Amino acid sequence: MADFVGAAMQPYFADNFYNPSSPYAPAVQVRRDYEAAKARLAQTFGAKGDELVMTAGATESVNLAFSGVSGHVVTSRIEHPAVLEAARQHDHTLVEVSAGGRVEPESIAQALRPDTQLVSIALANSELGTVQPLRKIAAVVAAERQARAEQGSTTPLLFHSDASQGFMQIDVQPARLGLDLLTLSASKMYGPKQVGLLWARASARLQPAIVGGGQERGLRSGTENVAGVIGFAEAAAWASAHRAGETERLSALRNQLEKIITTALPRAEVLGAPKARLANFLTIALPGLDAERLIFLLEAKGVYVATGSACSANKHTASHVLAALGLDSETINGSLRITLGRHTSEADIKAAGEAIIAAAQSEYERSGI
Amino acid sequence: MADFVGAAMQPYFADNFYNPSSPYAPAVQVRRDYEAAKARLAQTFGAKGDELVMTAGATESVNLAFSGVSGHVVTSRIEHPAVLEAARQHDHTLVEVSAGGRVEPESIAQALRPDTQLVSIALANSELGTVQPLRKIAAVVAAERQARAEQGSTTPLLFHSDASQGFMQIDVQPARLGLDLLTLSASKMYGPKQVGLLWARASARLQPAIVGGGQERGLRSGTENVAGVIGFAEAAAWASAHRAGETERLSALRNQLEKIITTALPRAEVLGAPKARLANFLTIALPGLDAERLIFLLEAKGVYVATGSACSANKHTASHVLAALGLDSETINGSLRITLGRHTSEADIKAAGEAIIAAAQSEYERSGI
Repeated sequence: MADFVGAAMQPYFADNFYNPSSPYAPAVQVRRDYEAAKARLAQTFGAKGDELVMTAGATESVNLAFSGVSGHVVTSRIEHPAVLEAARQHDHTLVEVSAGGRVEPESIAQALRPDTQLVSIALANSELGTVQPLRKIAAVVAAERQARAEQGSTTPLLFHSDASQGFMQIDVQPARLGLDLLTLSASKMYGPKQVGLLWARASARLQPAIVGGGQERGLRSGTENVAGVIGFAEAAAWASAHRAGETERLSALRNQLEKIITTALPRAEVLGAPKARLANFLTIALPGLDAERLIFLLEAKGVYVATGSACSANKHTASHVLAALGLDSETINGSLRITLGRHTSEADIKAAGEAIIAAAQSEYERSGI
Repeated sequence: MADFVGAAMQPYFADNFYNPSSPYAPAVQVRRDYEAAKARLAQTFGAKGDELVMTAGATESVNLAFSGVSGHVVTSRIEHPAVLEAARQHDHTLVEVSAGGRVEPESIAQALRPDTQLVSIALANSELGTVQPLRKIAAVVAAERQARAEQGSTTPLLFHSDASQGFMQIDVQPARLGLDLLTLSASKMYGPKQVGLLWARASARLQPAIVGGGQERGLRSGTENVAGVIGFAEAAAWASAHRAGETERLSALRNQLEKIITTALPRAEVLGAPKARLANFLTIALPGLDAERLIFLLEAKGVYVATGSACSANKHTASHVLAALGLDSETINGSLRITLGRHTSEADIKAAGEAIIAAAQSEYERSGI
């Protein structure tokens, strides 16, 4: 979490800790601040505050996005576990992706059925950073809706995207992209953990995920997370204001790191469609090496890299995303996910490049490959 | 939220902001700190860390407690809206309460049916502070379970209590009280907002509320709220250590305030069973007056009181709790809920007493009652 986000939240942990539903004046002011933060947050993606349901994070938002579904859903094989698990609670189709990790609009068109009620595709893949053609997928969804209207079908069809990964670099405007539902996470933009939102078009039908006092238009009961939402708005405003500059800066640094590594390690293979990646992502395979060992060698030098997603890493299972690209197990097991952030400098890139090269070379020597 | 809670959380907003499921060493340390905080938190009520499901607050915990139910549920008419709304999603019986707001174990016994799967009664009522006879209700539940076992019935019956209100003053040990499920909220004990827990006996059957990465034993997916849980543990440890002294201190102050008000205002009526109230609660009716007007007169003097619950106040509906006591509307509309806290001093009590008396007298004069 960024320092300026913490500073914005601080008063709401202390003096302004009132329940926004309490009747006395300082609590009413907290309610106003809360609604203003929602409006400011919504504005960063061209929406209105009262179209947002504030949640405890992207996973909860995704669950809520799926809540109105009573029929078939379409998503891809490389979605985040939150989407895959939510899809598994319904009749579902997981479309294949290209070798570069792109979801083809044509695959979505083929997977649609007359009873499909939801299509859910993330803006950018959380392990590869591959950006998906949301606008083209939205066109496929719109065409299906049009066809249904002409046939007199009243089965609703909604398009949801989890844009938690990618918001820092891509100007997400759900109305322009043709989305009906949008998930965002504060912690993916230097905001606090456990704060997320679901934006929903007014016509989208949802079922309350948590019942009780009726907060968030009855869709998500529980005392409002005032400090968290204040922090989320601060983080989103920063992301929005620095988007263009940071994307250019990170893209240049990432390309530099990629060149350093691939020049020194000819066997290194860059994963994910090169021209459709988030600026801060570099997923690189060193076939034959054990990525888990590399992680431990690198962390000793202060270089923190990952394999697959954080939660699948937790379970010591191979990445379902890399498997879906059709890669062999040697490549999957040797894959590192390197992400850059707002504090990453050119010096960091050089140090990381050297450390990765040294670790990989010593591992290649050790294993005699 | 208390300052010392914020101080304990601070490092996890900044340097220790790693996802506890990430593979590198500093993230592994965050995972250890998170698990240690859960263990420390559980210890304050005689439980183990791995028996807890961490949630975004009491409302979510209550929803999760009801998740395994496929039959009938029993609760009372004066429960928090979270419990009432969760109950309404099932076949349910709401038992009546005594004029003092007590749930009689005998009423629970009468409401049980062969298909009842859950009994849910809060430790203390959130509007009156009335403490419920949980141990006696647990005995009723245990007797029913015993009878079912003898009859060869395999229908499970669980006993849940939301002890968010009352934990500060009552030593809640679910195993000793005979509970199967226990809800607690951090924000009701000077911890952060949007942090709660559900403790569940190993045999309790629950359905995942939020699916995804499989955190919290698969019952509540989403990146862990590390800072929030660290803060919760800090708050619970403080509550536990200061329980006896604070209860004695607050009880004396509350009794003093009660005496000041009832002496000066003979029409004032104290609500809730006098000997079964939380030490920090004083719910007082001034029949014929408009409590909403009193709130505004009092807040101008820096005295913040409430009517009913915060969320029902929000909706300008009469308190369902006070209605369940069988009070007339004059009494309900003139009812104030006054709560004391760790910063409440004797000087505050005197000032609040004077302000309440002055406001009530001027309102009585104005209305000519």
